[in-house]
Amino acid sequence: MRTEILTTAAELFRARGYRATTLDDLARRLGMSKATVYGHFRSKEDLLAAIFHRTMTLAEAGLAAIRASGLPPAEQLREVIRHHVRLVVAERAFLTVFFSEEGSLPARLQKDIVRRKARYDRTVRAIVERAARAGQVRVAEPRLLVLALLGMSNWVYRWYHPGRGRAWDADTIAAAFIDLVERGYLATPAARGREVGRRLQRLEGEIRALRPLLRGISRP
Amino acid sequence: MRTEILTTAAELFRARGYRATTLDDLARRLGMSKATVYGHFRSKEDLLAAIFHRTMTLAEAGLAAIRASGLPPAEQLREVIRHHVRLVVAERAFLTVFFSEEGSLPARLQKDIVRRKARYDRTVRAIVERAARAGQVRVAEPRLLVLALLGMSNWVYRWYHPGRGRAWDADTIAAAFIDLVERGYLATPAARGREVGRRLQRLEGEIRALRPLLRGISRP
Repeated sequence: MRTEILTTAAELFRARGYRATTLDDLARRLGMSKATVYGHFRSKEDLLAAIFHRTMTLAEAGLAAIRASGLPPAEQLREVIRHHVRLVVAERAFLTVFFSEEGSLPARLQKDIVRRKARYDRTVRAIVERAARAGQVRVAEPRLLVLALLGMSNWVYRWYHPGRGRAWDADTIAAAFIDLVERGYLATPAARGREVGRRLQRLEGEIRALRPLLRGISRP
Repeated sequence: MRTEILTTAAELFRARGYRATTLDDLARRLGMSKATVYGHFRSKEDLLAAIFHRTMTLAEAGLAAIRASGLPPAEQLREVIRHHVRLVVAERAFLTVFFSEEGSLPARLQKDIVRRKARYDRTVRAIVERAARAGQVRVAEPRLLVLALLGMSNWVYRWYHPGRGRAWDADTIAAAFIDLVERGYLATPAARGREVGRRLQRLEGEIRALRPLLRGISRP
């Protein structure tokens, strides 16, 4: 019941904004009395706090699982991107409220969320730094890389509309993002690859041409 | 005077939110009478509409200049990233209101902004598609690439706080983003490239060494 109330509240806050939504709207949408809602949440602010807490907890739990996975750091970084895109797609209402309504939180909770977000970013940065030390990624400024990756992934909440137009699933979006940030979009590496291929073919051709001559030598 | 009013309004809406700001707050901050403000804007909503219009116009003007530049499409794509990061950094208050308060616009203006944003995205996508046709970029899904690039760049409005902690300038941020999305962060392609290069050199060296020997044989 608590989860149902919270999910419906997140959906209403997402669609109408926190300030414009009343507990009457929420009770009506749920088909419950306001007393039932008050049995679970003391106030609208309490609901908003619970939405922020659940969102942050989901994000933190996913990141903790990635760190505990024992995967190489570059693979953990991929998992961070997948984790964010999946979270935004699966919990779009919660993430939209999370990204839009921080200013509506009471100051104490706002400070708490800012602290948890900073710790989260530091944890992702530590993964980047381990990947860099392991020689798996090249990175001039780990903090900028983290902000780029999370920005790209979090922004999905702004354009992902399930059921509207052509919808990619979370893993398709994450795969495209991972391919982009791991390999880059410039075709020149591929062009360089083709050049290497041409040199290899030439070499192979020369070796093929040498083989009969060498066979002649080996039978003296 | 109009610009001064608009800039101060954007700063107040950014800091406190559109709904929480009154025209009294604005007049007080400006040290003007409300009548003076009303001489330039009919209402708070009119101010919000002007903030959206100015932001969209700045974005569109920059993009139009990029398209008219005659640069190769891959270079135009770089310029799009620079344009976004510069705009967000230079006009942080306007961009924050733009990204946060669309829901506060009257329906007609909201539709207008949605249409202009869609046209903007299509224009960026056309640059991506030209770059792909020219063989300059590899891209499976142009729309996803556009959303990734703009998401990463626009997200800057959420974390860029001039004067707080270490501040990069817009061009440093844009350069890091461009390097990331053009070349990717994986160290392995470069490392693999160097390794392939070394193997090729060794092979080419071996063949060079064989050639005179074989020439000797071929002159029997």
